[in-house]
Amino acid sequence: MTFARFKALHHGAEPLLLPCAWDHASAAALARAGFAAVGTTSLGVAAAAGKPDAGRATRRETTALARSIAGLEVPVSVDIEDGFHRDPGEVADLVAELAGLGVAGVNLEDGRGAGLAETGTQARLIGVIKRQVPGVFLNARTDAFWLGLPGAPALARARVRAYADAGADGVFVPGASTERDIETLVTEAGVPVNVLVQREIPVRGLAELGVARISYGSLLFRTALHAAVTTALEIAAGEPVPDGVPSYEQVEALHRYGRGDLRSP
Amino acid sequence: MTFARFKALHHGAEPLLLPCAWDHASAAALARAGFAAVGTTSLGVAAAAGKPDAGRATRRETTALARSIAGLEVPVSVDIEDGFHRDPGEVADLVAELAGLGVAGVNLEDGRGAGLAETGTQARLIGVIKRQVPGVFLNARTDAFWLGLPGAPALARARVRAYADAGADGVFVPGASTERDIETLVTEAGVPVNVLVQREIPVRGLAELGVARISYGSLLFRTALHAAVTTALEIAAGEPVPDGVPSYEQVEALHRYGRGDLRSP
Repeated sequence: MTFARFKALHHGAEPLLLPCAWDHASAAALARAGFAAVGTTSLGVAAAAGKPDAGRATRRETTALARSIAGLEVPVSVDIEDGFHRDPGEVADLVAELAGLGVAGVNLEDGRGAGLAETGTQARLIGVIKRQVPGVFLNARTDAFWLGLPGAPALARARVRAYADAGADGVFVPGASTERDIETLVTEAGVPVNVLVQREIPVRGLAELGVARISYGSLLFRTALHAAVTTALEIAAGEPVPDGVPSYEQVEALHRYGRGDLRSP
Repeated sequence: MTFARFKALHHGAEPLLLPCAWDHASAAALARAGFAAVGTTSLGVAAAAGKPDAGRATRRETTALARSIAGLEVPVSVDIEDGFHRDPGEVADLVAELAGLGVAGVNLEDGRGAGLAETGTQARLIGVIKRQVPGVFLNARTDAFWLGLPGAPALARARVRAYADAGADGVFVPGASTERDIETLVTEAGVPVNVLVQREIPVRGLAELGVARISYGSLLFRTALHAAVTTALEIAAGEPVPDGVPSYEQVEALHRYGRGDLRSP
């Protein structure tokens, strides 16, 4: 049911706006703020733990986060980097474990260091996962643009078709940022297309291009960290404690979810 | 040496400004921003894990955080709530474990639910810890003001004297917020006095009152969470992605500490 509910959010009149959390508090606060679903950011999870991103270093932290947020009242999708394992069976086991916790979807990327996994290899991985765990929304990410690879537009188009053919429920193309590239991907993919929030194209523009899902990626984690450091320095420089910040009690209540409300402090 | 360095920061010409982190990224970013030491916030650690604060629920998360940040280039002080154990020997073992990781100080509170631990019991706990682990800065916190107890000013004065007599290296009085209360505590405590950043009295004013250490408590965690939710809602409402946020690469580099610099993105 979680899967069906989450999948339906990719086929509504408006794109799914998916903010990405890195811990229980951020996930609960974003769900409370009214978002229909919550994702996770592997950068946030890794940086919080003092570990590298995209380094297969945070399988434990990722499953612990999934366990703590899968019970929220909105569907949760988990960023699992490249699956944290070389062996497709082990990746499928991880996805099955997450599904067992109540997770509705996963993101699986094809970046491997500075390049991409071989197309057929990645497509087979997607197939193995979907056969073993059909009830999880598998969002197949291609890093052609993200890694700045030569011929990224053509590369990304080929990848998203291959991944959709292999059974991916949706495709994610971080770094795709021109209207033409995004429109072409939407036309050709055959499954819902996911891009990142963009500096140049606002949410409405992405909706008009036919994007089905708009992710915040690591933006909110980076914004949060920036706000903490900036506020710390401002107070040190003599500025007053800022107004409008949620209270101790409101934040403390987030662990119970549904009792705090960050929007009306 | 870490202990001596951290202790000296309480006896300088200016008070020690202690921002409180909740994960590796926030600790590394605050250290990189130039703060002389970094503390932790038990609310942040608990909320991040989806657990209650002051509930003895996060001993594991607290030691894991300590392990990940004790190697930063600044002294680290860890908020251990009431010690996470009823037995003084177990609390002392925890403090010894943290000292072994390289932690320079701990905060130990006397709040127990809606009231305070008995004075003699808390003083004995402080004595047990300092005898077993003399090389950790023990900051003894009294929650008389924090819990809004009747007669808080007199109660807090008695507590800080008892805790200093028991061997505490410093005393922390969150909720003390009038110039008169703070000045009296500074005059009578006999050890460095720590208060929270204040809405009414800026850092310079606290310095003039003789405060030795000014902690940010949970403020930065709450500020970070607020910024994430606010930014998510603003983008959803059509506003552009904000400028000035540290890049993916800068945040990813924090796990190596010393290679990212949030102040010059």
